Amino acid sequence: MAALPHSPIGVFDSGLGGLTVARAIREALPGEDLVYLGDTARVPYGTRSPETITRYARSCAKKLQEHDLKLLVVACNTVSAVALDMLRVELDMPVLGVIEPGARAGVAASRKKHLGVIATVGTIGSGAYVRAVASIDSRIEVIARPAPLLVPLVEEGWLTGDVPRLAVRKYLEPFAAESIDALVLGCTHYPLLADIIRTEAAAVCGSPITVVDSAHATATDLSALLNDRALKNPRDAGGSLRLLVTDLPGRFGEVASRFLGVDVDTLEVAQIDL
Amino acid sequence: MAALPHSPIGVFDSGLGGLTVARAIREALPGEDLVYLGDTARVPYGTRSPETITRYARSCAKKLQEHDLKLLVVACNTVSAVALDMLRVELDMPVLGVIEPGARAGVAASRKKHLGVIATVGTIGSGAYVRAVASIDSRIEVIARPAPLLVPLVEEGWLTGDVPRLAVRKYLEPFAAESIDALVLGCTHYPLLADIIRTEAAAVCGSPITVVDSAHATATDLSALLNDRALKNPRDAGGSLRLLVTDLPGRFGEVASRFLGVDVDTLEVAQIDL
Repeated sequence: MAALPHSPIGVFDSGLGGLTVARAIREALPGEDLVYLGDTARVPYGTRSPETITRYARSCAKKLQEHDLKLLVVACNTVSAVALDMLRVELDMPVLGVIEPGARAGVAASRKKHLGVIATVGTIGSGAYVRAVASIDSRIEVIARPAPLLVPLVEEGWLTGDVPRLAVRKYLEPFAAESIDALVLGCTHYPLLADIIRTEAAAVCGSPITVVDSAHATATDLSALLNDRALKNPRDAGGSLRLLVTDLPGRFGEVASRFLGVDVDTLEVAQIDL
Repeated sequence: MAALPHSPIGVFDSGLGGLTVARAIREALPGEDLVYLGDTARVPYGTRSPETITRYARSCAKKLQEHDLKLLVVACNTVSAVALDMLRVELDMPVLGVIEPGARAGVAASRKKHLGVIATVGTIGSGAYVRAVASIDSRIEVIARPAPLLVPLVEEGWLTGDVPRLAVRKYLEPFAAESIDALVLGCTHYPLLADIIRTEAAAVCGSPITVVDSAHATATDLSALLNDRALKNPRDAGGSLRLLVTDLPGRFGEVASRFLGVDVDTLEVAQIDL
């Protein structure tokens, strides 16, 4: 089926962290209908092998394709890092990841040309941020390090206090010797810890650090892409959000609301099998 | 095929935490051959819904059955709590979980008849520990609370220092008013934090707390069960351990060695699809 301006946009994530991206898209493009798929039965992807991440990404994208999408946003850094090329080859629609927009925002934010990145083990291991930054500005040095424990910290709702503060500090300490002036949050969970990350990064590095979140950069790139392809929904408001998940655990509503910033009771939520 | 004494014992876990149980079994029963299946492609189970946990447990048990087992040990508290009855009905062999042995060891350890339990959200939500203890001694009060972040802390290898200490303290603080004298570690990851848990529990409660680990209790119960059914391998040594996993991520060897206490390079490791 041909993609049409009134068709929905698919948003795919390993779990619910990508709702931070869906939120930014809804703010930037309030007329668009979104169908979000969170693979909550198999989250997290960030600690798995590239082969397993690719297999899971393929099955989720196939499921989302049933919704006659005009475009797919991969709102997961790990999938964007490992499986974006595969998805672009196999899907008959434009596919936008979060790494290129995040890298571009990071490049713009670093005046000293020393850019830090924190992300999952899978994302860092792929080298995707280093490659994305090099393709924009080869003079920028990228220091990319994994910070995996921040994902379960956010899911547990420990967003303030000593435990997240000390965990963030432990992950940021190796940046002290690197004289970075900007830090990309290369995982959709991390923006919920942005205040602690900003404070600890400045303390560790001895000077203010600009913290870059790829959600807004992705929404901006999406808007440009829709205009380029004449796929923008002519409506200026009233877009819907359908939420598909592969598992509905007990604390689902609480965790989803944390990422989305609104009560999920107002959304259409459906559990699917994969 | 009929179960025979020289047939292997299956050991199943959502991931690698169950290797703490495999290790205790190898120490207690060094002549037994073990086939371990860790569902590393879908770990953790403890945060998922009972329906998804049951579905995953069924597919793993079916895979393990191909190895002509004489008995299955469910070395995962979450699966033992949620899906043990299903496995006992569907499998044509004895099935031993870790909750009954752990509950019995906890009952034996609590002189004040106030027993604490920490476990995953799935295990606590099932009420399995409360039921198991009540069936042994109905006069014992069980205070069971989830401590989910301890799983990723152990997987990240943060076993000492301020972050695990403060996380443990945060989970144990609600026990201060409960006058427990024993605490069951109701998740196979937690024994790796046993020293911190023991220290913080005593500090929070104001008196020494006996920390109970179900791995050794499970090995003891397994030994009795093998003798009862005349299924014990007549060998006294030389048992093998095959390690099947559904994903082989980059840090696999490091994490597996942490739980097993020996180098996994000496083991037969195979990745399987489910």
